[in-house]
Amino acid sequence: MTSVGTDATEILRAEVLTIGDEILRGEIVDSNKALMSERLHDVEIETRFQTSVLDHPEEMADAFRRAASRADVVLVSGGLGPTRDDLTTEVLAQTFGRELVLDDASLETIRTFFSQLGRNMSENNAKQAYFPAQAEVLLNPVGTAPGFMLDVDLGAEEGGECVFFAMPGVPRELKLMLDEQVLPRLLARAANKGRAQKPRAMRARLLRTFGLGESTLDAELKQIATEEGVELGFRTAFPDNYLRPVVRCASATEADAKLEAVCGEIRDLLGAVVYGEGDETMASVAGQLLAQHGATIATAESCTGGLLAEQITQVAGASEYFAGGVISYSNEIKQSQLGVPEVLLVEHGAVSEPVAVAMAEGVRERFGTDFGVSTTGISGPGGGTETKPVGLVCIALARRGMPTHVDNFVFPLDRVRHRTLTVQVALDWVRRSLLGVELVSPSLLRRRGGVAPPGSGSTS
Amino acid sequence: MTSVGTDATEILRAEVLTIGDEILRGEIVDSNKALMSERLHDVEIETRFQTSVLDHPEEMADAFRRAASRADVVLVSGGLGPTRDDLTTEVLAQTFGRELVLDDASLETIRTFFSQLGRNMSENNAKQAYFPAQAEVLLNPVGTAPGFMLDVDLGAEEGGECVFFAMPGVPRELKLMLDEQVLPRLLARAANKGRAQKPRAMRARLLRTFGLGESTLDAELKQIATEEGVELGFRTAFPDNYLRPVVRCASATEADAKLEAVCGEIRDLLGAVVYGEGDETMASVAGQLLAQHGATIATAESCTGGLLAEQITQVAGASEYFAGGVISYSNEIKQSQLGVPEVLLVEHGAVSEPVAVAMAEGVRERFGTDFGVSTTGISGPGGGTETKPVGLVCIALARRGMPTHVDNFVFPLDRVRHRTLTVQVALDWVRRSLLGVELVSPSLLRRRGGVAPPGSGSTS
Repeated sequence: MTSVGTDATEILRAEVLTIGDEILRGEIVDSNKALMSERLHDVEIETRFQTSVLDHPEEMADAFRRAASRADVVLVSGGLGPTRDDLTTEVLAQTFGRELVLDDASLETIRTFFSQLGRNMSENNAKQAYFPAQAEVLLNPVGTAPGFMLDVDLGAEEGGECVFFAMPGVPRELKLMLDEQVLPRLLARAANKGRAQKPRAMRARLLRTFGLGESTLDAELKQIATEEGVELGFRTAFPDNYLRPVVRCASATEADAKLEAVCGEIRDLLGAVVYGEGDETMASVAGQLLAQHGATIATAESCTGGLLAEQITQVAGASEYFAGGVISYSNEIKQSQLGVPEVLLVEHGAVSEPVAVAMAEGVRERFGTDFGVSTTGISGPGGGTETKPVGLVCIALARRGMPTHVDNFVFPLDRVRHRTLTVQVALDWVRRSLLGVELVSPSLLRRRGGVAPPGSGSTS
Repeated sequence: MTSVGTDATEILRAEVLTIGDEILRGEIVDSNKALMSERLHDVEIETRFQTSVLDHPEEMADAFRRAASRADVVLVSGGLGPTRDDLTTEVLAQTFGRELVLDDASLETIRTFFSQLGRNMSENNAKQAYFPAQAEVLLNPVGTAPGFMLDVDLGAEEGGECVFFAMPGVPRELKLMLDEQVLPRLLARAANKGRAQKPRAMRARLLRTFGLGESTLDAELKQIATEEGVELGFRTAFPDNYLRPVVRCASATEADAKLEAVCGEIRDLLGAVVYGEGDETMASVAGQLLAQHGATIATAESCTGGLLAEQITQVAGASEYFAGGVISYSNEIKQSQLGVPEVLLVEHGAVSEPVAVAMAEGVRERFGTDFGVSTTGISGPGGGTETKPVGLVCIALARRGMPTHVDNFVFPLDRVRHRTLTVQVALDWVRRSLLGVELVSPSLLRRRGGVAPPGSGSTS
């Protein structure tokens, strides 16, 4: 979430409009609206209205007209697909009295897209190469539906000029088009107008934290949140908490320096709790450290069932440091594939610190790596006992030439969140071990207010 | 999504309206809209519009008026809190010309709520005990802000009668009030009116398909989409395509039977391409079949890096059929942990059909399972060569007592989607093998139009 600085713009009014029956049936939580509003906010355009309508021509037309009358910028997502119920292009053209015109370049792009997949382009897909007259096509490098920009002028009495950006509803395509096609155009327009009443520059950054609750973060960062020209946003994204410092200054240079200073202060106050920035993940940060140290790692998973390895290998280039892993879901596999002694399983049970240690050391030795990390726990919903409740998990980290670290936690969470949090702690241990700082323990979590609780006010 | 049958109601039009600056700044993904629409859909009330506005009195008033003019039911969330910027009650009262009236019972409830927390009630909180005249208070057992129901009548010309339900924006409080206070009142009203001018019942179901593109599905199901009283929705959720048949009939019994018949027709037309319904996943469906057959499985993953096992173990109870797996990211691990002969790696390379076969058979034998499934490929972004491009993947399925099946695909997708699609094909093979139908092959994908392309317009 880098912010695009705009030195000299007045504040524009925007409407965000999403289209699709599935939204109005409540089948999906429509995150596109938040995405578009957030990006607009980053470039100091204020979303005044968010609207969603069905794939119905009259209601779409009504929404388009109304948006044009009350907003300067209208971002539309959805309804650009190849099927019968995708009507955005057609209805926008009709509403503002434009013909539909074939764009040869787009047709060629779509044709190529399909031929690369080894498939024929259907007639439906050809429909996606038609646009309202005078529209400017917006490229979609990751899908078949191009978007477009359309200027409309309703005349001063009806609300004046307005620009529409029609984009696909697939979040990933939308995001790319928004960042690469739409925002640059909006900024260029703002710059061209140059009506600078109150020159301001804004800069923002996303800091990712793990290990402290939202209210603890709030308390520890009080001095920063009250600085002039600084806003500090908090957002829970289980199991992390995100911080978003936003600074506003008279010039871009000033804002850059100010943001740098604020982020430095935050890191000083929170130490290793801040693990990354922007798009970094715990796995990518731990992976970078492994690569820097020329170290390798292997995983031995029981309750996380492959998620730990999956997160590690989501990072391109992970083969540099990741040798592989074993998912030992059954006790037999723990013995045969990881060399866990049967006596440990019998005496302590599969979910126990001794077994976690044997798994981590076993995989490290068998795979010949510097690190071995293991998880064994009860993610639920079933499988708990009186002494070993659902939510119990043991994590172990074996490191060449060092004593193996092991601890147990009880995370009273549903299956998905239990696995997610377990993996995050395990990866955080790898990161902290390489940084030479204290590993997160249950007591540390308790003392400091814990990880982001599963839902703490923010909607996600 | 079970639907509460109402035999004799006309379909009511609803608007869902959420209020709050944080929504329009894109700071939160507003899941309240989806929650309200889903609940309305369950009781056969159709959400026609979703709108969000800032905490600004004029814009709120405008939104209220507009909603009253175009909807029969308006669900409002947000703006009921104790602070200055919580304006819903006040603005609703003003908009429809009502006084604010103190409700003594609510004041007492709020006072008690605070004294139980050992705190004093502030004057701000007392504000929450005022409601528009003639409103009916809705209890909030988990928070301080009660909600209310308000009937308004704009006269036939302006849109007639309409009922507002004002609820808190905190998701947990909203959900409880919706389920316990709002929906029962809506159902009771529907029953009381009983004016059945045009008695209709609606039924819908989500069918999950894999292996055909959206436009191919559209073409193959043309006869169903054009049946009277039947709507057929399409939605891409990579790598799947979802179908959502919706039927409307005179009675619930008729609608149930009609939906059953339509789903039967779809399954007849598409065969094994329909793999599940509702919340089922490819992993849960394959898992069910494994359990039914008393069969077990193990995984050997290279390019999917643990994702295959992770999907299998996301299903609670997977330990019944899943023994475990190996993630063999390096060639050494392929040899040492899966027994892949070095000569195969040297002669054919790690991404080759012979190696995929050796991995699948190796893991099946070493883990002593009925099935062994393997993936080896180049998910990118790097690692491609002229003969083995980025996107190439080999998948093998070994089954006790049967010849091992192997094939290779080229999926020209980014890393994440490459892995997702590979896992889906692998799990689909397990499912198809247990069903005794043809396994999806590259030629089959091509012949039939392929999997859902990476984005084709629909929101997901």
